[in-house]
Amino acid sequence: MQGISIDRKIIQAPMAGVTTPELVAEVSKQGGIGSIGAGYLSQTATKAFIRAVKKQTNEVFSINLFVPEGSSVNEEQIKDAKQALKFAYDAVGSELSFDLTETEKVFNDQIDLVIEESLAICSFTFGIPEKDVIRRLKKANVYLIGTATTVEEAMAVESAGLDAVVMQGSEAGGHRGSFLRKSYPLIGLMSLLSQVKNYVSIPIIAAGGIMTGSDIKACYELGANAVQLGTAFLMTEESGAHPLHKKAILEATEEDLVLTKSFSGKLARGINNNFIKDMQGVALLPYPYQNDLTKELRRVAQMKNEKNYLSLWAGQNIRQAKLQRVKELMASLYE
Amino acid sequence: MQGISIDRKIIQAPMAGVTTPELVAEVSKQGGIGSIGAGYLSQTATKAFIRAVKKQTNEVFSINLFVPEGSSVNEEQIKDAKQALKFAYDAVGSELSFDLTETEKVFNDQIDLVIEESLAICSFTFGIPEKDVIRRLKKANVYLIGTATTVEEAMAVESAGLDAVVMQGSEAGGHRGSFLRKSYPLIGLMSLLSQVKNYVSIPIIAAGGIMTGSDIKACYELGANAVQLGTAFLMTEESGAHPLHKKAILEATEEDLVLTKSFSGKLARGINNNFIKDMQGVALLPYPYQNDLTKELRRVAQMKNEKNYLSLWAGQNIRQAKLQRVKELMASLYE
Repeated sequence: MQGISIDRKIIQAPMAGVTTPELVAEVSKQGGIGSIGAGYLSQTATKAFIRAVKKQTNEVFSINLFVPEGSSVNEEQIKDAKQALKFAYDAVGSELSFDLTETEKVFNDQIDLVIEESLAICSFTFGIPEKDVIRRLKKANVYLIGTATTVEEAMAVESAGLDAVVMQGSEAGGHRGSFLRKSYPLIGLMSLLSQVKNYVSIPIIAAGGIMTGSDIKACYELGANAVQLGTAFLMTEESGAHPLHKKAILEATEEDLVLTKSFSGKLARGINNNFIKDMQGVALLPYPYQNDLTKELRRVAQMKNEKNYLSLWAGQNIRQAKLQRVKELMASLYE
Repeated sequence: MQGISIDRKIIQAPMAGVTTPELVAEVSKQGGIGSIGAGYLSQTATKAFIRAVKKQTNEVFSINLFVPEGSSVNEEQIKDAKQALKFAYDAVGSELSFDLTETEKVFNDQIDLVIEESLAICSFTFGIPEKDVIRRLKKANVYLIGTATTVEEAMAVESAGLDAVVMQGSEAGGHRGSFLRKSYPLIGLMSLLSQVKNYVSIPIIAAGGIMTGSDIKACYELGANAVQLGTAFLMTEESGAHPLHKKAILEATEEDLVLTKSFSGKLARGINNNFIKDMQGVALLPYPYQNDLTKELRRVAQMKNEKNYLSLWAGQNIRQAKLQRVKELMASLYE
C-alpha cells in the first residue's frame, strides 16, 4: 500500500480495551502493522499509549479512532437503562457509576495527537471524519484507512479521499463498523470482497474471521490487498485480553457466538453469557452511552474474574484460535 | 469425488420451485452437476421431472430431498396463521386454500423413486435421513450428499455415512439448512470452510454467495473439494425463476437482502418486499406448514406479476448476478 511498506500486509485489528503497547509494538517488529485501539481512550491515555509503543519500536504502527456519531440521550433514557443494568451490577457486587463520553472532544483531541506525534497510519471505525479533519491529516502525511461493511460504505470511504478501506465481513468479532444506514447488513467476507473489488480502486484490507495462512490466500484470491486479524492477535501472549476471555475462546465453537448490543448500544459479536442472555429486550442507551454505563461493570467483572459479565468478543473462525506469541502467529500466517 | 467424475466440481444448487428439467440437464451437459430441487414435489411430479431430465441427457445429475422433521400443528395455530395471511391474499386478489404436506409420505415415495430410477446422486437438506434409508440408498449405489451449516452438523453428516457434505455459508440465498439445534448460527462461508476441513474427511462442497471463478478458487484455497452455486444458476435463461425475480436480483444490492421465516416457517434469505415487511411479528406455522399456507399466494403472485408477494430468494454476492445461458456461466467459472 502506498505510503507504507508493501511487505506489510498483515494488520493487527485495533481492539479497544484489548490492545497493549507490547502487542502493537511486537506486531510491527514482526513485519506486520500493530494498531492502537484508541477508540475509548482519553487524550492523556492515548498519548501515554503512543509513547509506550514508540519506546518499544521504531517500526510503523497504526492508531484507530472511533468517529463520533452525534447521538444524544435524555435523563429518562438514562434512568431506564440504569434500572435495566441493576441486576448485573448486583451480580458482580458493585455500584453503577458513570461519565458520559464527550465523543467530539475525545476525537478532536486524538486527531491533534496523531498529528503532533507524527503517526504514519490512522484508521477509523463507525464512520468517515469530516472533510477538514481528513485535510489536516493528509497534510501531515498520515495514511488514512476507513472501515466498511458494504460496497456502498466502501465507495463512501474512497470518495472521502481515504487511502484504503477495511472490509469487515459478518464473521468479525467485536463491533460492527456499519455506519451509512441504521441497520446491520452482516455480509459474509467472501461475498463482500467478491463484490467490492469492482467498485473501488483503493487498497482493500480484508477482515472478519481470518486466522490462518490459507484464509489470507483466499482473501487475496478474492481481490484483497492486505488483511486485518483480530481474534488471532487477541489470543497472543502480548494481548491484554483477560485470561478468562482467552480461555472462553479456546473452549467455544462457532455456535456459541451471538450478536448483542447489550454492552455498548452497538451490535457486536461475542461468546454468549448470562449478561447477554439477561439483557435481551431491556432498555439500552444508544451507542456510545450504553458503553459508558457498562464500563464499571466490565471493570469489576475483570477484577473479580466474573466471566458472565465480561464482553467476550470473538470472530466466527473461533475453532482455529491458539494461545501463542505474536512471533509464532506471524510466522504461521506466512506459511 | 468418489462415485462421480472428479472433473465435476460445479454443482447447481437444488432450488425447489426454480429448477427446470432444462436447467438440470444443461448444467450436467456442460460438465457440472445439475440438481433437481424436489423438496416440495409429489411422487408423480418428481417422477415426471426425473424422466424429463433423462430425456435431455445421459450425463450424471442429482436430486435433492427435504428430510422430514416431524413438526405438527393444531387447529388454533392454523386459524391464527390464516388470519395473519389474509391481508396478503386480499392484496393479490385470491382466497387462501391449502393442503398440509404429508412430509413423511412424500419423502419415502421420493426415496423409492431415487432407487427405481437408478439415480447416481441424492442430496439432502434440513437433516439426515434415518439409518435404513441411508442403507437402502447405499445398497443402490447412490452417492449421498448432506447439507450442514456448522462443524457439528458436518460431523453428524459424516458419522451417518454420507459421502460428501455441502457447507452452506450464511451468504446463501433461500433456506438455511441448519438442523441440529433450534437456532440459525449464520456462519460466514470463509470461517465455515476454514474450520470444517479440520473436522471431517469426506469431500466438502462449498455453498453461499459463490458467483465467479475467483470465488471458486478461494473456496479451494480454504479446503473445499467442489462448489455449489444457487443464485448464479437461478439467473440463467434455463432456470424457471420468474422474470420479476431475475429482474429484482439484477436491481438489488447486498443491502436489500433480509432473512425471513414468513414464507415457509424456516429462515431464508431473499430480497425485502412488502410481504416480508408486513409479516413481521405475526403468527406463523412451523415449517413446512407455513409453506403450505403461502403456496397459493405465491402461485397467484407469479401469475399476476405481483413482485411484492413473491419469495425473491438470493444470495449475498448479488451484484455479480448476470442474465446468461448456463453454457456462458459455466465457461466463466472455469476462467
